[in-house]
Amino acid sequence: MDERVREHAEVLVDWSARVEPGDDVVLSVGPDAHELAVAVAECLGERGANLLATYSSGEVTRAYLRAHDGDFAEPDHERALYEAADVVLSLGGGRNASATADVPGETRQAYATARADVREARFDTRWVSTLHPTRSLAQQANMATEEYREFAYDAILRDWESLAEKMARVKDRLDEGNEVRLVSPGTDLTMSIDGRTAVNSAASVAYDSHNLPSGEVFTAPYATEGEVTFDVPMTIRGEPIRDVRLEFESGEVVTIEADQGEGVIREIVETDDGARRLGELGIGMNRGIDRYTNTILFDEKMGDTVHLALGRAYDACLPEDESGNESAVHVDLITDVSEQSRLEVDGEVIQRDGTFWFESAEDDR
Amino acid sequence: MDERVREHAEVLVDWSARVEPGDDVVLSVGPDAHELAVAVAECLGERGANLLATYSSGEVTRAYLRAHDGDFAEPDHERALYEAADVVLSLGGGRNASATADVPGETRQAYATARADVREARFDTRWVSTLHPTRSLAQQANMATEEYREFAYDAILRDWESLAEKMARVKDRLDEGNEVRLVSPGTDLTMSIDGRTAVNSAASVAYDSHNLPSGEVFTAPYATEGEVTFDVPMTIRGEPIRDVRLEFESGEVVTIEADQGEGVIREIVETDDGARRLGELGIGMNRGIDRYTNTILFDEKMGDTVHLALGRAYDACLPEDESGNESAVHVDLITDVSEQSRLEVDGEVIQRDGTFWFESAEDDR
Repeated sequence: MDERVREHAEVLVDWSARVEPGDDVVLSVGPDAHELAVAVAECLGERGANLLATYSSGEVTRAYLRAHDGDFAEPDHERALYEAADVVLSLGGGRNASATADVPGETRQAYATARADVREARFDTRWVSTLHPTRSLAQQANMATEEYREFAYDAILRDWESLAEKMARVKDRLDEGNEVRLVSPGTDLTMSIDGRTAVNSAASVAYDSHNLPSGEVFTAPYATEGEVTFDVPMTIRGEPIRDVRLEFESGEVVTIEADQGEGVIREIVETDDGARRLGELGIGMNRGIDRYTNTILFDEKMGDTVHLALGRAYDACLPEDESGNESAVHVDLITDVSEQSRLEVDGEVIQRDGTFWFESAEDDR
Repeated sequence: MDERVREHAEVLVDWSARVEPGDDVVLSVGPDAHELAVAVAECLGERGANLLATYSSGEVTRAYLRAHDGDFAEPDHERALYEAADVVLSLGGGRNASATADVPGETRQAYATARADVREARFDTRWVSTLHPTRSLAQQANMATEEYREFAYDAILRDWESLAEKMARVKDRLDEGNEVRLVSPGTDLTMSIDGRTAVNSAASVAYDSHNLPSGEVFTAPYATEGEVTFDVPMTIRGEPIRDVRLEFESGEVVTIEADQGEGVIREIVETDDGARRLGELGIGMNRGIDRYTNTILFDEKMGDTVHLALGRAYDACLPEDESGNESAVHVDLITDVSEQSRLEVDGEVIQRDGTFWFESAEDDR
């Protein structure tokens, strides 16, 4: 077995999910994530945890959903499983990223609605989602399989402890600050963050972070003013998106332009009132992710990028019992800040051309 | 998709497990049983059942078990899942039939012991085990893959309703009878079946039958006298077994001979007192199974064969609250009755040279 698969499993089990002896672990296995599942099973055995593996296949789900009449009942057995589980590890890795492409939207929605309690029970565990670098994901990233594997392990096998410390410095600055300003070509945007709490998303449940890889610091901004250009390409709702330019006044989008995919962005913004406002300001700090691969799990954590999401804010960023921007959508858009860029908190530059105040351009990166 | 895969799924869901709308179904998927899982998911969607798929991989289990220190705890989450489930469908189909060959016996035993409640909860559902005809199973049967598929679907896609009716006639004769005599080359054996109830194993939970394919009628004999030769080859505990000859006196084995594997048979017989006695007399009636394939799920149901098991008897064959032969083992041995053979109940021939009293040698078979 590739030694990196074993290291990936160890990071997932120990750093991310903090598995302890006797933990009841659900291991969700994608059809092409078998090799990682074997490595994770070995770790779980070593740690003395209990293992139940589930099978997460887009093709199985598609067959089931398309055959169903849409009147879904809540699955008691699945809820019982997650209610009794301590940890859920999801190993993504299908064979066709579009395996459920022809499932009607209303069927998905009805299925998701019937499973609300299952989802909640799952979110009440120490859950972590990761991806095994499969051929299908390589194809989605327009990369050769081995090239993609190198890329994915660079992103996953970080020194997480040291990155978490760096990210803690950025989080502290955001927590203390009142206003953020982002300046780069086509962008001059100010946002209030007064009273909001940033999340140090360090790929571990110990940091309220549930993705491996992670590596971003995010908060929930408001009162956004100015203009922003998102120059990192994306695919949203199956459509390619290029160079989106938004203008904000009093916290709301007032102008939308894009070289490609403008219709999709307009559709998103018109979903509801909350979709006109920002729900997230995220600072990508995972320098193992050095390119766009058309997978949001990786893209939004890319080093030297900042992302903003239209729509729903995360509760973790808000004062207790206060809800932030609400919306049915949460759509991330990404901008490159590696050149001619600066990020300021209350007028002080915290990142210039991708380099944070505590780094120098050549060292410490 | 091969239309036979779809038919297999329909037989499993409708005939075998009697799935109803709203049933909570656990679908256990072997790594190479994916295609059958897709077909079964489609059926379950059509019937309006709830689906949770689990992943049953010998390689995952091996990695887990070998890494564990052997002090297993009971997995609460897995027990909770089965306690809440109505139906469990197991789709066997690995990639290497020997995937767990190097797991120490004491580890397996400790794991099985810790999971006694899980197993019991699973047996309290409408559970059915079947096999997807994989390359690995074809190899185990010394057959080409496509040849094996033909064989497997011949065994699985029977007219189960009509076979169940035939088997009911044999069951009735055994239930009414007191003594069975089996005569064939190297065999003249009598067994008492007075007070015992035969099971019509018709591949459906409606018949207390949990294997697909099935197709045998079995009961629990005692007071065995005489000699028997098992001429169908087998592999037991990894050892090839050929032409075992046993002699019984007052219900117990007194002589053991075999052309191959005699040591394994002696080891089995010496397990405990119950292992010296028979726990099962089974009459194979699935004529879709016309050859030995080194898989007990198929072999013991082969048409024109009779099998006897050393060891534990099934409770279903015994008067309520009475226990039959008890033993830690239950090892089936098979004899061909297609030629120069007869099976008698209370002196009346019920099967001669493979033909039952209600059949003619050429017709109705």
